[in-house]
Amino acid sequence: MARIDDLRKIADRLRIHSLRMTTASGSGHPTTCLSAAELAACLFFGEMRWNTKDPRDPASDEFVLSKGHAAPLLWAAYAEAGVIPIGSLLELRKISSDLEGHPTPRMNWVKAATGSLGQGLSVGVGMALAQRLDKSPARTFVLLGDGECAEGQVWEAANSASYWKLHNLCAVIDVNRLGQSDPTMHQHDLAALARKFRAFGWDAVVIDGHKVEKILGALKDAGKGGKPTAILAKTLKGKGVSFIEDKNGWHGKPLKADELARALEEIGCLPDVDARKFVHKPKPFRKKKSAASFDFPRTAYKDKTATRLAYGNALLSLGQVNPSVVAVDGDVKNSTYADKFFETFPARSFQAFIAEQNMVGVGMGLATKGYIPFIATFAAFLTRAHDQIRMAGYSFSNIKLCGSHVGVSIGEDGPSQMGLEDLAMFRPIPGCVVLYPSDAVSSEACVAAVAAHQGLAYIRTSRPATPVLYAPGETFPIGGSKVLRKGEGDAVTVIAAGITVHEALKACDGLKTGGLGIRVIDAYSVEPLDKETIAREVAETGGRAVVVEDHYAGGGLGDAVAQALAGRAALKHLCIRELPRSGKPDELLERYGISASHIAQAARELAGG
Amino acid sequence: MARIDDLRKIADRLRIHSLRMTTASGSGHPTTCLSAAELAACLFFGEMRWNTKDPRDPASDEFVLSKGHAAPLLWAAYAEAGVIPIGSLLELRKISSDLEGHPTPRMNWVKAATGSLGQGLSVGVGMALAQRLDKSPARTFVLLGDGECAEGQVWEAANSASYWKLHNLCAVIDVNRLGQSDPTMHQHDLAALARKFRAFGWDAVVIDGHKVEKILGALKDAGKGGKPTAILAKTLKGKGVSFIEDKNGWHGKPLKADELARALEEIGCLPDVDARKFVHKPKPFRKKKSAASFDFPRTAYKDKTATRLAYGNALLSLGQVNPSVVAVDGDVKNSTYADKFFETFPARSFQAFIAEQNMVGVGMGLATKGYIPFIATFAAFLTRAHDQIRMAGYSFSNIKLCGSHVGVSIGEDGPSQMGLEDLAMFRPIPGCVVLYPSDAVSSEACVAAVAAHQGLAYIRTSRPATPVLYAPGETFPIGGSKVLRKGEGDAVTVIAAGITVHEALKACDGLKTGGLGIRVIDAYSVEPLDKETIAREVAETGGRAVVVEDHYAGGGLGDAVAQALAGRAALKHLCIRELPRSGKPDELLERYGISASHIAQAARELAGG
Repeated sequence: MARIDDLRKIADRLRIHSLRMTTASGSGHPTTCLSAAELAACLFFGEMRWNTKDPRDPASDEFVLSKGHAAPLLWAAYAEAGVIPIGSLLELRKISSDLEGHPTPRMNWVKAATGSLGQGLSVGVGMALAQRLDKSPARTFVLLGDGECAEGQVWEAANSASYWKLHNLCAVIDVNRLGQSDPTMHQHDLAALARKFRAFGWDAVVIDGHKVEKILGALKDAGKGGKPTAILAKTLKGKGVSFIEDKNGWHGKPLKADELARALEEIGCLPDVDARKFVHKPKPFRKKKSAASFDFPRTAYKDKTATRLAYGNALLSLGQVNPSVVAVDGDVKNSTYADKFFETFPARSFQAFIAEQNMVGVGMGLATKGYIPFIATFAAFLTRAHDQIRMAGYSFSNIKLCGSHVGVSIGEDGPSQMGLEDLAMFRPIPGCVVLYPSDAVSSEACVAAVAAHQGLAYIRTSRPATPVLYAPGETFPIGGSKVLRKGEGDAVTVIAAGITVHEALKACDGLKTGGLGIRVIDAYSVEPLDKETIAREVAETGGRAVVVEDHYAGGGLGDAVAQALAGRAALKHLCIRELPRSGKPDELLERYGISASHIAQAARELAGG
Repeated sequence: MARIDDLRKIADRLRIHSLRMTTASGSGHPTTCLSAAELAACLFFGEMRWNTKDPRDPASDEFVLSKGHAAPLLWAAYAEAGVIPIGSLLELRKISSDLEGHPTPRMNWVKAATGSLGQGLSVGVGMALAQRLDKSPARTFVLLGDGECAEGQVWEAANSASYWKLHNLCAVIDVNRLGQSDPTMHQHDLAALARKFRAFGWDAVVIDGHKVEKILGALKDAGKGGKPTAILAKTLKGKGVSFIEDKNGWHGKPLKADELARALEEIGCLPDVDARKFVHKPKPFRKKKSAASFDFPRTAYKDKTATRLAYGNALLSLGQVNPSVVAVDGDVKNSTYADKFFETFPARSFQAFIAEQNMVGVGMGLATKGYIPFIATFAAFLTRAHDQIRMAGYSFSNIKLCGSHVGVSIGEDGPSQMGLEDLAMFRPIPGCVVLYPSDAVSSEACVAAVAAHQGLAYIRTSRPATPVLYAPGETFPIGGSKVLRKGEGDAVTVIAAGITVHEALKACDGLKTGGLGIRVIDAYSVEPLDKETIAREVAETGGRAVVVEDHYAGGGLGDAVAQALAGRAALKHLCIRELPRSGKPDELLERYGISASHIAQAARELAGG
């Protein structure tokens, strides 16, 4: 077991590595690392129990570096633990190295990308929940900065941790007083931060964050009160180097070569201590394996059914065959129909209340531990978690998001409740799957498809009940599409998805009586788009295409099709081009130009041209 | 002055209106209105001082309905005050009515759209700040629900209000215990909510929210302690109607005709009271008018300068000629260069710390009072405020956002810091202007352009210093573009913006020596795009085009150009197609395919084809 003196030495080794690394790379945040050196030493080599041979050992305690700009400190700790070579540290921030400027899971000990501040605690909440579900004795530690405690998401996470009584969760806050451009709001008023955590249902303790014995004591006591615990550590940014210590203006600045020499002189030589032997092994624990499948019995839909309702039914069915599937709600489960899953599987269901950022972060945490979280709310409110979804992309996270109530077709509730920018939010994320079913059968199939897919995925569901278009058992592979109407001599191809598929079919039927044939494609896979089928069908209809979507003009299906058909089609794009208002769904489809009559008109214009 | 009994009667009138309106429309949230009926009565006809003739009278107290789904209650209050006809209430949620399902400023007494929960308090903070700036005696009141207090943004707002000592701000929280699908986290544990507000630096008082005399007392005392005040009002959802009162499962459900009849029987007839005579007139106050201009002296740039630096310089110059311009920062002002404005105009500068959602909401509040807020942070972190920006669109808000550090060209800090999805976030918002300057001159001109533009606007700035391309005084109108290279027989047009303009120019110069002429367009106005110029130039180069951007594939300039050129060009799209990593800027431009060499290669392929 490490003595106080060993941990002090390790802290200084972490300091020296952090300084050298950032000077070598010519960028980075050394002062942010220096304030947390003792905290990291005590966590990795004092309190945490972890298996240095296996980053995925479920017996190990979990660690999240929420203050991601202290990445050099994290890399240094892993090097000291023998997980990566110490020599690799000087590769920091090089294009060839996985030791990036802020942590991403390219470095395999990192479970969630951080660097957009205030997100780590939510991930930690999800990990601690997973540990409880697994009946694991392991704990979760999150290292935060004081600056990021201004992010509301930290308080959403704090709320949920105390609500779920996660005494296996410990937040260590490195209160170094200085933000990037200004001192933090509370500076060294640690009592103010403690009051906040206590008001949010946590145990909170204030310590000197450079005193190893105090840190060890606080870490040992964490959770004993049956609550999540916040350790508020008073520290100095740049601690250990006189000319940068506790000085404003040194955020994100590496030392120059001569400054580094002076700094190293002050700290002294690299202390002689082998940190590897101080890592505590985890308590024996193996996770129970259960049979899991993605194949669930499909429903025989006949009557008009909303895609959101079919989503709820499918999630319930999936839950029956796969115990890794969990659900997270933002207090709208009776609208997304995730409530069916919640009622049947209360132990695997998590009410995150109206706090979408934390909802996504908790899902990310659960996913790091092998769960498959389905996270649903109104599509409009997923914009609240855009930054978190972006970071889920950088985390290669296996979360599944569902956004309901998309487009003007929701009707009277008005624009604040209409998801009209969600496709534009999800499409850019590299590798993110975006599915948009038009009927109950395809909605159910989309749930099966995203569950079996490893990676970030989004399903877009609609509020109104829509007719059933497909036979039970029809498959909807990611990247596919369905040609729903096709005839010899079709003059125009209409590419639609979701609610507009039904409008397109109406337009097709209407035009047929007038002698104009149009082809209709259900482009349920918006990302990846079935470019080949779309291009082929459009070519067969003389290069004339209409794309119609219940989404704003930018970033949605229209853009995707325009890219796919660039130079190969005369394209009309029907979509929502102004800020919509409350009204009846059909009135709104008509007023904003995406109804059957508008599709027919666009097709006639193209065919006549 | 209203007596207790009058206010009770007014509350019942508001109840009756709310029930009738929602039953008439067949949708809406009557129970949410009923819990807050006494609160609304006491606010509008007891405590607030306001001019019912002029929604923009700066002497009036401001009101924000953060719990936007109680819109019928708000419309009813305005009707009782004589601002709108009582008969118009039954038009609720009709496509022809401005009395929408959730408030938007289409109804001219609404200053900020609400309905995405947890946003109103930030707007109120901005209003209260503006009132202080104006030296107005008026106050700001925000009515929140308890469910939305789970949103982190509420605590960001609470933080900032106490930091700024806004004793002119009063939050009234309608603690009706029930969310949409579940009871709230704290239900009727009002003490828990009070502890939170107190820990965040507020005065907090717990009252019975159906007792008019208690409400009046609390409102009267609000702010007397020199702090913002939270009035935590214990209420019952559906109060006054036995079969819905305090019952789960009644969220967002209008009463059926027979239920309405029973409900009205319980409440009794519409009480006979003329609420109009109880509205308190505001204290006399006029806002001082100052000369304001958008024309500021331009800088004579010669050396390589980052567009973000030119933004900072321009904001400072604009501030000199326009006293309505204010700045809001998220603790990165030394990176966005808003620090120049902060140093010179401290009274008009607001440090919102690392809390981007509140930062945008505060800006919206300031804008409602005639200020022109420039709100800047890293573009990546603006995704944190996507929902708020979306709601700013629905609010027709005059805020100006600046996102710095866009794309892989930031280099070593890594993907979490790279704005690669911001164009996809801003482009969909109808009417939002999106500008993306490539050099210092155009960056400065963009600041001038968005300042003079009434409405939401976004400027995208880059981290690296780039050569000066334009002469001082060159104008950059919204919707324009610049043809930078043009020659007889050009084979391809390259459409670029920001950093890629410089790569395109390098490619042009390189290809020229090989005998291949390419045209280069600086598409600095991404939204609206200069479709005419682009289409014309592309047509002149044989319909061959390359679009190149430091942004992900979906939703950005590439999509915009593909739409503009649909059917008229063979288009190659160079952009970031995978999750990037840390590295040097030039290495990253090369690796991810948007450097001069890739542009040249694409042009050669198109020209050869």
